[in-house]
Amino acid sequence: MVSHPPGQKSIRLFVEAALENGAKVELSPSQAHYLSAVMRAATGDRVALFNGRDGEWSAAVERIARNKGTLRPVEQTRLQESGADLWLVFAPVKKTATHFIAEKATELGVSLLWPVFTAQTATRRVNLERLRANAIEAAEQCGRLDVPEINTPLPLDAFCRDWPQGRRLLVLDESGGGEPIAGVLESFKDNDTTTTLGILSGPEGGFSSAELDALGKLPFVTHVALGPRILRAETAALAALACCQAIAGDW
Amino acid sequence: MVSHPPGQKSIRLFVEAALENGAKVELSPSQAHYLSAVMRAATGDRVALFNGRDGEWSAAVERIARNKGTLRPVEQTRLQESGADLWLVFAPVKKTATHFIAEKATELGVSLLWPVFTAQTATRRVNLERLRANAIEAAEQCGRLDVPEINTPLPLDAFCRDWPQGRRLLVLDESGGGEPIAGVLESFKDNDTTTTLGILSGPEGGFSSAELDALGKLPFVTHVALGPRILRAETAALAALACCQAIAGDW
Repeated sequence: MVSHPPGQKSIRLFVEAALENGAKVELSPSQAHYLSAVMRAATGDRVALFNGRDGEWSAAVERIARNKGTLRPVEQTRLQESGADLWLVFAPVKKTATHFIAEKATELGVSLLWPVFTAQTATRRVNLERLRANAIEAAEQCGRLDVPEINTPLPLDAFCRDWPQGRRLLVLDESGGGEPIAGVLESFKDNDTTTTLGILSGPEGGFSSAELDALGKLPFVTHVALGPRILRAETAALAALACCQAIAGDW
Repeated sequence: MVSHPPGQKSIRLFVEAALENGAKVELSPSQAHYLSAVMRAATGDRVALFNGRDGEWSAAVERIARNKGTLRPVEQTRLQESGADLWLVFAPVKKTATHFIAEKATELGVSLLWPVFTAQTATRRVNLERLRANAIEAAEQCGRLDVPEINTPLPLDAFCRDWPQGRRLLVLDESGGGEPIAGVLESFKDNDTTTTLGILSGPEGGFSSAELDALGKLPFVTHVALGPRILRAETAALAALACCQAIAGDW
């Protein structure tokens, strides 16, 4: 029997398989371990499943062992809905802070995570598998019906060339040259309810002044400011996402 | 010589001593270790000091050893200014998440951190020394001229009796019963520019429904919502603080 201490959420897993009546969902070894050893699930217990396409299903545990297991979707409990359309582009920071960004951005509803390398980005590698694992775990916990996509990392200049027409990019500018973020977001809301947004968050060292200048010349860029204190890179990213959702997003 | 890699901030320390011409500031053992072993500071190097009262001073290293040192304030570089007036009241969560709350809340400019124990708070102790150390370190990094105060932890009911007249308390209500936070903050801004605020953030298990009901009866409480996803306690606290600062605070 799966028991839930007060306040603990029921088990919720992201799977790749189709979810429909009669389907059979094989668990990954780590999911089977989680269900059997951590949550002590047994045959017949119910688990919530989602795959980003078929809504949420209540599934029954058919077989469960230490490193494998099978579930049977029994009934659809939520219809698939499209999540927020909000991108987070970020310079990778230290490992823990990067995991943090992926986790919190997922909770805050971003649809795409996109690492970029800037001049002062100290980290030159980013573990996309790990980023995706963080995003999946956060999506399972926060009740989302999808997992953010993760784009291939690019250097900043290539990234700027690839940016899609029509989407605004808010650059978190710690040099003091940006406009207060709340006013910028309000103006989007006033002018055009269909503005789609991305946030660009720099590395610990900030953007170089050449980068800020170059970004400022792009028609889709707005430099925004997050107050008088120097925020850590991950704090700035998260704070900006919260403002986007509260003022111009799905809150 | 203290050298700074690109983008790294110069050394900045919080001290208790008065800062004025002719003063002598003794370093704590951990500050001396940080200056000598980590930052490799030498006699004559400059360090920024603040104490929450006398602005920021550039101080010269007079003597430095492994576990002690003396600095001499040389010139005042910033006048003391009062920071934002924003309180964060929070149910302690797991250790790492609690440190995270203290660090991020300091960066986001809170003036007071106040732990409260609610019915579903799993953690029954909070390390106030550690909380203060997190806040000091974050204040040093983010350029604040003060460090948030830390109030003595209280059970929720005693806390409610102690809440000061005239300050609004925004309760982060994950039950779905709150109003969207942006609208609530806008209404404060429209009605009265002198509204002072506090945020009340619950434990991982959320507030009990009895607690939400009791809070809802208090004249200073507004229940607010942070969107359709289930946020971790620390994410909710941080997101709400960012919204307060962006919409009705010092951003």
